[in-house]
Amino acid sequence: MEKGMKAEIISVGTELLLGHVVNSDAAHVARLLAELGISLQNTQVVGDNRERLLAALGIAASRADIVITTGGLGPTADDVTRFACAEFAKKPLVINREIREELARFFGHDPEENQLRQAMAPEDASIFPNPRGTAPGMAIPLGNGKFLILLPGPPGELEPMLENFVKPFLQRLSSGVILSRIVRVFGLGEGEVDERLSGLLESANPSVAPYFSDGEVFVKLTAREASREKAAGLIEPVLAEVLERLGKAAYGVDVANLEEVVVKALIRHKMSVATAESCTGGLLAKRITDIPGSSAIFQLGLITYANEAKIRMLDVDAGLLEKFGAVSEPVARAMAYNAARLANADFGIGITGIAGPDGATPEKPLGLVYIALKKPAGMSVFEMRPEGLYRGRQWVRARASSYALYFLKEALDQLEQ
Amino acid sequence: MEKGMKAEIISVGTELLLGHVVNSDAAHVARLLAELGISLQNTQVVGDNRERLLAALGIAASRADIVITTGGLGPTADDVTRFACAEFAKKPLVINREIREELARFFGHDPEENQLRQAMAPEDASIFPNPRGTAPGMAIPLGNGKFLILLPGPPGELEPMLENFVKPFLQRLSSGVILSRIVRVFGLGEGEVDERLSGLLESANPSVAPYFSDGEVFVKLTAREASREKAAGLIEPVLAEVLERLGKAAYGVDVANLEEVVVKALIRHKMSVATAESCTGGLLAKRITDIPGSSAIFQLGLITYANEAKIRMLDVDAGLLEKFGAVSEPVARAMAYNAARLANADFGIGITGIAGPDGATPEKPLGLVYIALKKPAGMSVFEMRPEGLYRGRQWVRARASSYALYFLKEALDQLEQ
Repeated sequence: MEKGMKAEIISVGTELLLGHVVNSDAAHVARLLAELGISLQNTQVVGDNRERLLAALGIAASRADIVITTGGLGPTADDVTRFACAEFAKKPLVINREIREELARFFGHDPEENQLRQAMAPEDASIFPNPRGTAPGMAIPLGNGKFLILLPGPPGELEPMLENFVKPFLQRLSSGVILSRIVRVFGLGEGEVDERLSGLLESANPSVAPYFSDGEVFVKLTAREASREKAAGLIEPVLAEVLERLGKAAYGVDVANLEEVVVKALIRHKMSVATAESCTGGLLAKRITDIPGSSAIFQLGLITYANEAKIRMLDVDAGLLEKFGAVSEPVARAMAYNAARLANADFGIGITGIAGPDGATPEKPLGLVYIALKKPAGMSVFEMRPEGLYRGRQWVRARASSYALYFLKEALDQLEQ
Repeated sequence: MEKGMKAEIISVGTELLLGHVVNSDAAHVARLLAELGISLQNTQVVGDNRERLLAALGIAASRADIVITTGGLGPTADDVTRFACAEFAKKPLVINREIREELARFFGHDPEENQLRQAMAPEDASIFPNPRGTAPGMAIPLGNGKFLILLPGPPGELEPMLENFVKPFLQRLSSGVILSRIVRVFGLGEGEVDERLSGLLESANPSVAPYFSDGEVFVKLTAREASREKAAGLIEPVLAEVLERLGKAAYGVDVANLEEVVVKALIRHKMSVATAESCTGGLLAKRITDIPGSSAIFQLGLITYANEAKIRMLDVDAGLLEKFGAVSEPVARAMAYNAARLANADFGIGITGIAGPDGATPEKPLGLVYIALKKPAGMSVFEMRPEGLYRGRQWVRARASSYALYFLKEALDQLEQ
């Protein structure tokens, strides 16, 4: 592929035009294109409508070399993308035998009429398998090195397809090797990350780009070179500089999230953790057990939502509850301590707070959370105070569980020093 | 405003094309348009680039009556939206005295040169104040009842401006009322919902549209009429027909999700539930406690990931575990029973299964989950077998917790009969 190649994204789905869902698909595709150095100058959204999609394809193909659609590949009459794209490319759709067999395996029987729509593709299309769903993706050649790429809409299907099939496909068109490293960050805001990385963000090769979504921050470094080794060599010193500047806030490189880092570290140390949650209501345990293999390090979690459950199940002293209230440092300590004791675990985490929207008092505002960590030796407690406006129940719960994971990660780091 | 008026959104920002942020602005504007019954058929994204924005404006104005831009109104040289839009509308920009005074108040001094860019607007523009930031929004008349509306990019500034200023502005232009009802569905796939609703999906007023995202299905009915009463009258018989056809799979109308339905029903009945989870690892408790007010109906949850925790905390008989294995109907029953007993709750849920990716045996495949529900009288157990391919750990966990909520909802329904 020539340098300076241009792409355009067309997201297809009436639900996008109604605002029922946010267009995260376009952002995912855009990130891949940025990583590969393919220029994206426009994106469009159209509904599930043949004529309007054809019009959008016409506009896109007039100014881009690679047109990527997301969505509208399902089995229903609403799903027009495959048909409009074939019509636009002037290529008949035929039933692809491989996809048909894949569908038969998926359903456990020969696909039905409407399901069979998903097995249709132009003869010369490259097929991208979809292990997470029934609609495969495809790349339809448009001639002159141009391609029309069709991808499924559900993010859970799109994301692995991008990484496993679309990326290598686009890389084959391009010259050189692209290498990326991702630095995960916790506890710094958007402005603070930008400030700490000032001067680095203008770098072109490797590029250094911070990403912000849903309160999470990560920094992606991407190098393009003739070989993987050369690309790695370009990235290395810049990665070291980024880690230096972000300090302890950078909790991992090329990891998925805090819970993955924590679970892997516990496995490495052959240690275990138990949880006692009040306001997070199981979210912390859920995040830990999201990680495959977590059964080796997590045996027991308790959700003691009511005072009585704290007393009966966690042996929290009724006097403590009466004197300090359920949302207090002593109660968080008792929860952490007793969770670890009951599970015979190395670490215990106790979380108690006010997620809201009700339950606040003048002394105990919405968003106040106590997070206690019982360690093999000693105990530490963190008071999470609401910063500025109360941002809602889910935000408080997510943030409290992230802090708990971050403190556990810090404690595990200290074991390695 | 005429019936059938059309809008188009142009989101401006290079960060969108790099995938640094997800385009939530477009979704917010889209929702407002849907609410007002203004048809949105296309949206575009362009970078901070004058020529490309002019081209996008040309395309949009050729097919829409109201063109709404988001982003690019700031004080820097990158922020070209205001200038390109004025150029497109062929209207000179002048310094708006009110905005200038607003800026002076905001900064505490007379605005500097670059800040003053934000006080520039065409003379006949309607200004939308921005209490959260420095860039006001505006509506520029294009003649023939058409408008070009410029809105700021930061969601924290955009959202209140939409609600407080853009909504009343657009409402003054429009006639009629839009009314929507949403039917939530569990346990039916995309194809099955389409099939059951066949013949209804073509209806125009009210429209009947199924939406699918992340394994969730809902059906939205939308009517447009002169009054709210007339719109409700149009929807009513079609809603009844949709509910009839979907049967028990339709679990609620105008509700957010299964957990909300369940928590509200428990509150209504003054009943409570306790959970004992293995493979879902706290996800079920997390979903219940996502709902504000859940503390009235949920006192205790246990996550007994290890056999020992099942024995020690839940009094599950070690003999049962040995004889049937942890993933078995008898163990699920014991978990549900003892969770309810320990919490003195009316309902108890026990979940044990193989979320994977490891832990499967020939007899117990990935995705096999037992869900037991202890009711005030009696107990029922459901065996969730993997359908087709194993779709991953998170899918199994999400589905198992949804089934548990659905069974609890069914049991609560029976109390009302």
